[in-house]
Amino acid sequence: MNVELINTGSELMLGRVLNTHQQWLCRQLSDLGFEVTRQVAVPDTAIDIQNAVRESLGRVRLIIVTGGLGPTSDDITRELIAQLLDRPLTLDQTVMKAIKGFFAMRKREMPERNKVQAMVPQGAEVLHNPNGTAPGLLMKVEPNRFHPSGQSAYVVMLPGPPGELRPMFTDQVAPRIRPILPPDAVFICRTLRVTGLGESLVEQRVAGPLQGLLESGLQLGYCARPGQVDVRLVARCSGAEALVSAAEVIVREQLGSQVYAAEDTAIEDCIVTALSKRKETLAVAESCTGGSISSRLTNIPGASAVFLAGLVTYSNEAKQQFLGVSADTIAAFGAVSEPVAREMAEGARNRTGAHYAISVTGIAGPAGGTLEKPVGTAFIGLAGPFPTVVERQFNPGSRQTFKDVTTQQALDLLRRKALG
Amino acid sequence: MNVELINTGSELMLGRVLNTHQQWLCRQLSDLGFEVTRQVAVPDTAIDIQNAVRESLGRVRLIIVTGGLGPTSDDITRELIAQLLDRPLTLDQTVMKAIKGFFAMRKREMPERNKVQAMVPQGAEVLHNPNGTAPGLLMKVEPNRFHPSGQSAYVVMLPGPPGELRPMFTDQVAPRIRPILPPDAVFICRTLRVTGLGESLVEQRVAGPLQGLLESGLQLGYCARPGQVDVRLVARCSGAEALVSAAEVIVREQLGSQVYAAEDTAIEDCIVTALSKRKETLAVAESCTGGSISSRLTNIPGASAVFLAGLVTYSNEAKQQFLGVSADTIAAFGAVSEPVAREMAEGARNRTGAHYAISVTGIAGPAGGTLEKPVGTAFIGLAGPFPTVVERQFNPGSRQTFKDVTTQQALDLLRRKALG
Repeated sequence: MNVELINTGSELMLGRVLNTHQQWLCRQLSDLGFEVTRQVAVPDTAIDIQNAVRESLGRVRLIIVTGGLGPTSDDITRELIAQLLDRPLTLDQTVMKAIKGFFAMRKREMPERNKVQAMVPQGAEVLHNPNGTAPGLLMKVEPNRFHPSGQSAYVVMLPGPPGELRPMFTDQVAPRIRPILPPDAVFICRTLRVTGLGESLVEQRVAGPLQGLLESGLQLGYCARPGQVDVRLVARCSGAEALVSAAEVIVREQLGSQVYAAEDTAIEDCIVTALSKRKETLAVAESCTGGSISSRLTNIPGASAVFLAGLVTYSNEAKQQFLGVSADTIAAFGAVSEPVAREMAEGARNRTGAHYAISVTGIAGPAGGTLEKPVGTAFIGLAGPFPTVVERQFNPGSRQTFKDVTTQQALDLLRRKALG
Repeated sequence: MNVELINTGSELMLGRVLNTHQQWLCRQLSDLGFEVTRQVAVPDTAIDIQNAVRESLGRVRLIIVTGGLGPTSDDITRELIAQLLDRPLTLDQTVMKAIKGFFAMRKREMPERNKVQAMVPQGAEVLHNPNGTAPGLLMKVEPNRFHPSGQSAYVVMLPGPPGELRPMFTDQVAPRIRPILPPDAVFICRTLRVTGLGESLVEQRVAGPLQGLLESGLQLGYCARPGQVDVRLVARCSGAEALVSAAEVIVREQLGSQVYAAEDTAIEDCIVTALSKRKETLAVAESCTGGSISSRLTNIPGASAVFLAGLVTYSNEAKQQFLGVSADTIAAFGAVSEPVAREMAEGARNRTGAHYAISVTGIAGPAGGTLEKPVGTAFIGLAGPFPTVVERQFNPGSRQTFKDVTTQQALDLLRRKALG
């Protein structure tokens, strides 16, 4: 069963906002077994929104439209789709009451303009919005005069804010669409996350051994990301699970511990889980990554049981004061050096009493590079109940890329050396 | 001059990857004066890619296609577009040499598969890629048999990795397309960033006073984001600059210091700039935000001149050891409390000697909430050469939303109270 996604919003076309709905909804729809064959974004103008919906109705039976259900003057999706499908709008008293209740609970008066959110196209099913004022709408289009077959179709309209869209999709849309438009095949998608190897080397190692499975219907994809390559194994056929599992075994054989996880597991997830199981603790001493290692670790629920402290020692004085790095070492080798990374890791471990401590010192740029230590240089240390390790890395690129890749390498050093 | 953007990649349709190209390219194109009227994402399949390009050629004269130029088997954009436009591919020796050079510099052998990246469609202009192996391509389509007018069109193909796509667009595509397809009108877009007010309240205050300008051609948009509302002022007409500037004056009058910046300036940008000018310094003591305040501040080039240290004191022991928070205060009031936030801020300031210190302690959830201090509660402190301030905030939502909104509030407290 094919689906198309339409994202409305002039802010998207002007590049003022990142479209996170595409990834989230595509992910949900694929996992339900639907195949998203096209995603389209258009500005908040009548002709563009109506053209996009009309064209999608000419191709598929399920269309998800996001945005334009709010109370402000640029929110026009509801009216335009109702007009395209010849459905008059009427004020729904139940919806009106819910919107009034939303404001009453917050002890605020309802602005007059919010009334438009209670207008419902004839025959549309209302999707209640417990997290905001814009209800969603589900409309059956029958007959579908835009499709050659005339076969019925469904248009779902969802509000733009992710905190409203996501629970509405999960709680109300998914349970409604599965029975009326059953996905037509088994769908298995598994993503293996690989660190420490480039994209073409990954393919060079796995493509040959996977050849037989590709001929049986396995689909293979690669995606290069900061410090990581994702290998995607997909099958849509009977025996899909067996096919993907056989492929996973082969990829793991070929790449060994360079596969750090399957699916959406971030490397910080693996670390928090492994430390929790072992009842061990961690401290972090960062300079050039500026808190990004700590921030990624503390994104994981349960981090508080294993993460004791992160010391973002940006200045030399902070390195001495909070980590006990010696002024002589800094003077002799520079703040970005193997000995300083070593003292940072050992200092963080000693002062917090953590089982392990990671340290990073480097040059994020754009300024501060030298011939011997150009922008992109990083020293990553790991202290634990073993001799301290320091690795030198070179990650040229933008400041943000440098932080992302170096953070990934630091987390991976801990995973490989201590939690393997 | 209208433009369409086509993003290829099955990983996008499966929701395994976030499409950041859309925002980035739409932003660049609008700022050059082009109007992006549609963005489409399709999977890596022949029919979908060719249909999307064919349809766009039927509507506009400039099409930007991203992805599918890599060396792996799912990279097929180059071949498919060449086929659609009847252009045979030939091996370009200059490109081949550049790719070989890329590997030689890294002391690696070129995998055989990378050869496909040197195949160039007849008549295409090669866009050199200094950051990777996939060259971009610029093709003039003349006559354009897919458009009713037959008027010539241009197809630009860019590699998928952002670190390759972005410099290629800026350095090679923008300078080439401006002269051949001059943008047809003045375009001014200004986004004012507002904190501390909800979306409909913002509209309630500004929409009335802006009414006159709307009638003169001003376009107005709103976008709600974590801890922030963006007000977008757009004009595409002669006198656009004056119209948008007049609108900006009105919005600033209505919202006062709740407008913290124009354009893409993040609040951390304002802070690093203001502190640099004043030659003042900052320290941060974080608990529940877990390094996110430090990480955002250190994203800004030049942060090292003003940011001394960030202490991510997750455990109670770390709060005592690194910030000197008293064990008695924690015992009496709990780690998430006004007095602890106060001692954290003052401790960070005293120990680092910074002019200002921000502190945050709160409950990110999902666990740890109580009736009196539910998940989402945060205390934000600010110490400086004035009596320490502590504000209590309530930010219910996911762990990530909590971190984002609380980080924004903490940075805003510093901006309002110390740098205003």
